Amino acid sequence: MTEQRAKREGGKKVVVVGGVAGGMSTASKAKRVDPTLDITVYEKSGYISYGACGMPYVISGEIESLDDLVARTPDEMAEKGVTVHVHHEVVSIDPDAKTVQVKNLETDETHTTPYDVLVLATGAAAVRPDLPGIDLEGVHVLRRLEDAAAVQRTLKNGAKEAVIIGGSYIGLELAEALVKAGLNVRVVEQQGSLLGNFGPLPSKLALKEVQKNGVTVHLGTEVTALEGDARVSVVVTAAGRFPADLVLVAVGARPNSMLAKTLKLNLGPSDAVLTDDRLRTSRRDIYAVGDVTATHHLVTGKPAWIPLGDTANKQGRTLGNLLGGQSARFKGITGTAITKVFDRAFATTGLTLEAAQDAGFDAEGHDIETSDHAGYYPDHRPLNVTLVWERGTQRLLGAQIVGYGDAVKRIDVLATVLSQHGTLQDLADLDLAYAPPFSSAWDPVLVAANVALGK
Amino acid sequence: MTEQRAKREGGKKVVVVGGVAGGMSTASKAKRVDPTLDITVYEKSGYISYGACGMPYVISGEIESLDDLVARTPDEMAEKGVTVHVHHEVVSIDPDAKTVQVKNLETDETHTTPYDVLVLATGAAAVRPDLPGIDLEGVHVLRRLEDAAAVQRTLKNGAKEAVIIGGSYIGLELAEALVKAGLNVRVVEQQGSLLGNFGPLPSKLALKEVQKNGVTVHLGTEVTALEGDARVSVVVTAAGRFPADLVLVAVGARPNSMLAKTLKLNLGPSDAVLTDDRLRTSRRDIYAVGDVTATHHLVTGKPAWIPLGDTANKQGRTLGNLLGGQSARFKGITGTAITKVFDRAFATTGLTLEAAQDAGFDAEGHDIETSDHAGYYPDHRPLNVTLVWERGTQRLLGAQIVGYGDAVKRIDVLATVLSQHGTLQDLADLDLAYAPPFSSAWDPVLVAANVALGK
Repeated sequence: MTEQRAKREGGKKVVVVGGVAGGMSTASKAKRVDPTLDITVYEKSGYISYGACGMPYVISGEIESLDDLVARTPDEMAEKGVTVHVHHEVVSIDPDAKTVQVKNLETDETHTTPYDVLVLATGAAAVRPDLPGIDLEGVHVLRRLEDAAAVQRTLKNGAKEAVIIGGSYIGLELAEALVKAGLNVRVVEQQGSLLGNFGPLPSKLALKEVQKNGVTVHLGTEVTALEGDARVSVVVTAAGRFPADLVLVAVGARPNSMLAKTLKLNLGPSDAVLTDDRLRTSRRDIYAVGDVTATHHLVTGKPAWIPLGDTANKQGRTLGNLLGGQSARFKGITGTAITKVFDRAFATTGLTLEAAQDAGFDAEGHDIETSDHAGYYPDHRPLNVTLVWERGTQRLLGAQIVGYGDAVKRIDVLATVLSQHGTLQDLADLDLAYAPPFSSAWDPVLVAANVALGK
Repeated sequence: MTEQRAKREGGKKVVVVGGVAGGMSTASKAKRVDPTLDITVYEKSGYISYGACGMPYVISGEIESLDDLVARTPDEMAEKGVTVHVHHEVVSIDPDAKTVQVKNLETDETHTTPYDVLVLATGAAAVRPDLPGIDLEGVHVLRRLEDAAAVQRTLKNGAKEAVIIGGSYIGLELAEALVKAGLNVRVVEQQGSLLGNFGPLPSKLALKEVQKNGVTVHLGTEVTALEGDARVSVVVTAAGRFPADLVLVAVGARPNSMLAKTLKLNLGPSDAVLTDDRLRTSRRDIYAVGDVTATHHLVTGKPAWIPLGDTANKQGRTLGNLLGGQSARFKGITGTAITKVFDRAFATTGLTLEAAQDAGFDAEGHDIETSDHAGYYPDHRPLNVTLVWERGTQRLLGAQIVGYGDAVKRIDVLATVLSQHGTLQDLADLDLAYAPPFSSAWDPVLVAANVALGK
């Protein structure tokens, strides 16, 4: 019946550029909500809809195969009525004619196809710094499934000495993965700290954790070249020459906003595409979702570029609802992130003290160390909570937590308070769950709030 | 300087009746905030300030000694300037003369002492049903440290067959403890389900969990008598006679509000003492905190009697601040609780569907089952989330979570949304922390919100 109506009336044609988290969520949701929509997704790589965040655990061997990360295949999407073309790149867009030019990367043929609605979900790309030797074999980034497959091939070639350039959370997740894969691992970070955007205490504890697990760390150390004969063998830095038969470059990413630039769309921080709460860009009938977009930061009230898969999914679901004719809004983010580095877990939401001050807040911060479970209960472990708040109003601006396992997921309580512009007192007033195996009688986040209120 | 002023001016005299969570929190905080206060605490039992929730883990042997549960001793309080008398019972109060009559339970002597401010922190008592044989040896309740010591003595006597009367969370925590202590354990519950106040799905999963661990459960079964020769040997029920050399009666508690009744204080549900957000009772200069009080329920807007140690601590801290001259308010509770039963964890906040309907809400509920961590990540385990909301407004009214370990602590996110009268959409909009070892890309509570929104 619905199918018949689709054929009779001819649904709007939606072209989605990019088929990972944001693009596929949009396509799936839109089709479910309005089966009359004619949806085509073009994806440059060979995979759609995969759990990129799982790649370190495939490299470590904890997850058996990259295939395990793939949530949906093009065939599965076809069954749902969404047409997906992998290895197809949208090379240009004519917003007046409302057409896109698409290149089949396997045949090099191009064709032009019309759209009523265009969704930019082009994601982000790993930054490859312009270093001598960057194109040697054995030098990798980790962004797409193909990258992970390439790392696996280097490992199978018998790589023993790994150098990771960059000490952000991706770098540290990879350090753990490669230690577990049996390699000697070095992390070289240009800045003075690891996990810099989580703030000073997480940085310090992350350094301790990776060193404890046998990773050599070089902070404040710039890489100047990669050397080798076809295959990389040495990483050259100001602090010395390090042997390397596997180099992972994890120095950040940038939005794939080239198409957006040709359309002269309004761009925000890092040249990410600005969208409103309906995921509209500055051009009619062109939307954007996922890592290519800047999102409204609920703490600063300004656009921020914090590319994460869960945000992409949420934007895609929102846009899918909108394209299907439902009402929906994407309210924004609070900048929540979590990472496991060996045994320890690190989480952040909102702003660090430094970021809050940089954003112009008269901000104050405080760290506490306590236990994740009742102090008398056998398995309690240390938990560090940092709160950042605005002087005067005592509005919460951010929080960071370091600890072990799921106990660190209580960062979500702080994210929830942030999303409502809550104060330290609002936090202290919460009725949180207590039993000795799960918490001390005062939950650590309440302890942190009470200590902060006392300052 | 402050000490000198205290001596010169003579601080107000505060008498605290009851020295566990609520009473000791009040006394400690008040003294810290205003050292001139003259604070005396009378506690009927031999212990103050202990973690009652830890008692099952001492009985199981996971925690070595009951002493480990004691946070502060009377001597430690004396050092802080708070006078504590254990084995002292306040037997009557003259609110006109502003005096209390205190009985030394070791000498049976009584004396009368004046107060400026009186704090009722008399807690709650375990219900001992009026059954034949209830006073036999080997029949216990578990409320005070002395009760736990008595259970330990029965265990040392070689008890092998345990019957727990009552399948609430205390009953189930004790079932686990006694299985770990090596006993055969039966739970006899008069109602048709275990963990009844957590709702139907937790009830069902709790039954499965305890049975899997070798506990025999008799639902809808009334206990009619206990039999034995000085020491209990049989529990008589409609479903049969069960051998028992240890019986734990866990059929609930009631507030110790006898003194409050003699004062004709306004009482609420279960005869708990009604207080306002400054912990004031209906009589001037008489306050109440902890398990003896009814508290404002933020979801129903009405007083509720949900006696829990963390609430008592929070009330005590608030009242301590107030008595010390600071401004503070106790805003209320959302009815959040968590319990571990063998490997599984059960949590609730706000109302179950049944409770919401009983409270007059046009309520709807829905259960989902998902994974606590990314589906492709090695250690993911089932997680069940139940949401309860008001039709029309879609205001969240309650939630229950069943799962494993700290993953269930995400109930706190729902408690936080409840405390702000948030809707399903507010929940769905949250920016929660995602990485494969901690969550699926859509956090389970977001999945639950989206499913509920689709209904």
